Amino acid sequence: MREVAVIGAGMNRWGELWEKSHREIWTEAALEAIDDAGVDHVEAMYVGCMSGGLFMGQEHLGALLADQLGMGPIPGTRVESACASGGLAFRQAYLAVASGAHDIVLATGLEKMTDVDGGMATYALSTAADQEYECYQGITFPGLYAMMARAHMERYGTTRRQLAEVAVKNHLHGSMNALAQFPMKVTAEQVEGSVMVADPIRILDCSPITDGAAAAVLVPLETAKKMRVDPLIRVAASAHATDRIALHERDDLCWLASTAKAAESAYQQAGVGPTDLSFCEVHDCFTIAEVMVIEALGLVDRGRGGSAAEGGFTALDGRVPVNPSGGLKSKGHPVGATGLAQIREVVHQLRRSCGDRQVKDARLGLTQNMGGTGASTVVHVFERM
Amino acid sequence: MREVAVIGAGMNRWGELWEKSHREIWTEAALEAIDDAGVDHVEAMYVGCMSGGLFMGQEHLGALLADQLGMGPIPGTRVESACASGGLAFRQAYLAVASGAHDIVLATGLEKMTDVDGGMATYALSTAADQEYECYQGITFPGLYAMMARAHMERYGTTRRQLAEVAVKNHLHGSMNALAQFPMKVTAEQVEGSVMVADPIRILDCSPITDGAAAAVLVPLETAKKMRVDPLIRVAASAHATDRIALHERDDLCWLASTAKAAESAYQQAGVGPTDLSFCEVHDCFTIAEVMVIEALGLVDRGRGGSAAEGGFTALDGRVPVNPSGGLKSKGHPVGATGLAQIREVVHQLRRSCGDRQVKDARLGLTQNMGGTGASTVVHVFERM
Repeated sequence: MREVAVIGAGMNRWGELWEKSHREIWTEAALEAIDDAGVDHVEAMYVGCMSGGLFMGQEHLGALLADQLGMGPIPGTRVESACASGGLAFRQAYLAVASGAHDIVLATGLEKMTDVDGGMATYALSTAADQEYECYQGITFPGLYAMMARAHMERYGTTRRQLAEVAVKNHLHGSMNALAQFPMKVTAEQVEGSVMVADPIRILDCSPITDGAAAAVLVPLETAKKMRVDPLIRVAASAHATDRIALHERDDLCWLASTAKAAESAYQQAGVGPTDLSFCEVHDCFTIAEVMVIEALGLVDRGRGGSAAEGGFTALDGRVPVNPSGGLKSKGHPVGATGLAQIREVVHQLRRSCGDRQVKDARLGLTQNMGGTGASTVVHVFERM
Repeated sequence: MREVAVIGAGMNRWGELWEKSHREIWTEAALEAIDDAGVDHVEAMYVGCMSGGLFMGQEHLGALLADQLGMGPIPGTRVESACASGGLAFRQAYLAVASGAHDIVLATGLEKMTDVDGGMATYALSTAADQEYECYQGITFPGLYAMMARAHMERYGTTRRQLAEVAVKNHLHGSMNALAQFPMKVTAEQVEGSVMVADPIRILDCSPITDGAAAAVLVPLETAKKMRVDPLIRVAASAHATDRIALHERDDLCWLASTAKAAESAYQQAGVGPTDLSFCEVHDCFTIAEVMVIEALGLVDRGRGGSAAEGGFTALDGRVPVNPSGGLKSKGHPVGATGLAQIREVVHQLRRSCGDRQVKDARLGLTQNMGGTGASTVVHVFERM
């Protein structure tokens, strides 16, 4: 397989974008990535989107958006893995370049979630879980993550305050991100005093419903060198793994096996370990998710994820900064776009162009993008050369 | 890129399968393909499905079905390109093997369409078209294809009887396929006397709403040789192209540009031309579609597609047999599965195990799988070695 580089990235300002269609949102991000890459065409494109059907009444997004970009007849492929759709779209684009099938590929992610009412959005999101065995019983995502949180608190002594500190940290980071949906700072008291959704998860433990898109351009590493791209950003690893989709089928409610498996593969491909990472962008769809993800990535020992944010370990100036972008929590979570937005953050961090939220000496960044309660995970590692 | 072979294929009996869940249908096809391949595991899998959300209330099918197969944590990727989702899932699986990322990959397609009512099914299918500029005006797929049919009749003198003969031929072929949803023969008079849907398209010009799945197993050609697979079936070409999604944006209502483009690329990859093909499986979602597809594939001259079925050119014993399986028309059209079922037919034809519907001396088979009114097309060419 050929080595692959990322040479461009783009993202629109996320939020409740009622005045814009999905085409406009997506095109803003795609054109920014293409412009950032300094190319005048792409040979193929991928679109990560979770539920074009339920959120927008529009499937066939690969063809629609290739057309919208004015780049037909290039192949446009839509990829879906619930909230990991964006990361998976990037991975398919990576394979298309690595295989030699294409030389310039655009990877994108999109979700337009706020044109339907809250009930419909909740239903659409629940299709990421096991409909027959989970959702049919009446549970939705906050409830599923609440069960994981309760189990983690019970077994490891993780506290309500520790969960709140994840939100505090990510909103602090997001307050320095001009594209974030909720760039306000929050206090632990505000999180703990916010409306209860599914005990122990409160509204400020949850990532929001968002309209947004993000994109990246991939080429062979050799091409990037010839283009004199500086700094070169190499895709050092690309991994994807799955787990039992229904919580009740898993051996351990407190362990994200798909994340652990994908991370293991990614570390092996990149020839690095968790202590080598400069920073991570991870899937904090709920505060408990970040706690469990950093354990599965090996950033902290099993059961020790709760104290990481509280102790400053994952802060911008901590040992391993986690979610310098603000994460899903503050930046927003248009489900199909999230994985690509993580990658956009890594590209800008590795270029060291992130201003106030810049991670010092960023050299090696990891992204972890997860579907459902972790039934699928996509992990990428990027290196500044 | 590595050369790739198909070593197994599977498909369930298609129809209105109310007594079976999507999991069961999919698993029947997947296990048959794995068993047929003689392997005991796969390293990755792809699922083509158009609208899991609208038809079944279930997205995240890559993870769900990897779990269902008992093969987690393998990567499970869902791919969508409307009715070309199955062909595109096969293409992504092909790239995964060709790139060296994986050595044994399962490509599958699935759609469970009859658990919703007809209005919902029609709405779900319409999400393959341009919702904002086409469907919002009230048009659905029979209407879109009816406009293409009218244009073709007007410009080229294609007749109502010629359209009927496509249905007659494909039902004759399908009558020899034990897995077909509608394996009855029909006469041209029956087609022309059937209920009008959208003038000139009548109900017997339309492919049906179907529950079904199909699957194939891909490995590097070298591996297939070591396994002493006989006959070896090589993927000689894999191509994907797009076109303007909305009919009104196209230069020519009578020309399927994405099919022509994908075919051109496929012929170039395979080093063959349309006259070299032993047979084709094409996307006859409506009778007019087959007429236009065989023109875009270069099997007949532009404007001459109408007379092909009528004159016996595309019959089982004709110059180029088209849709020996019965096509979408008789076999059924579970949209995400169709592309994989075409490939299953090719595998069995190239093995020369198709009994009464066997194409004589089948050596080179082409599949053409199309999304919407041709906004996307995936073409593959397979060679018996």
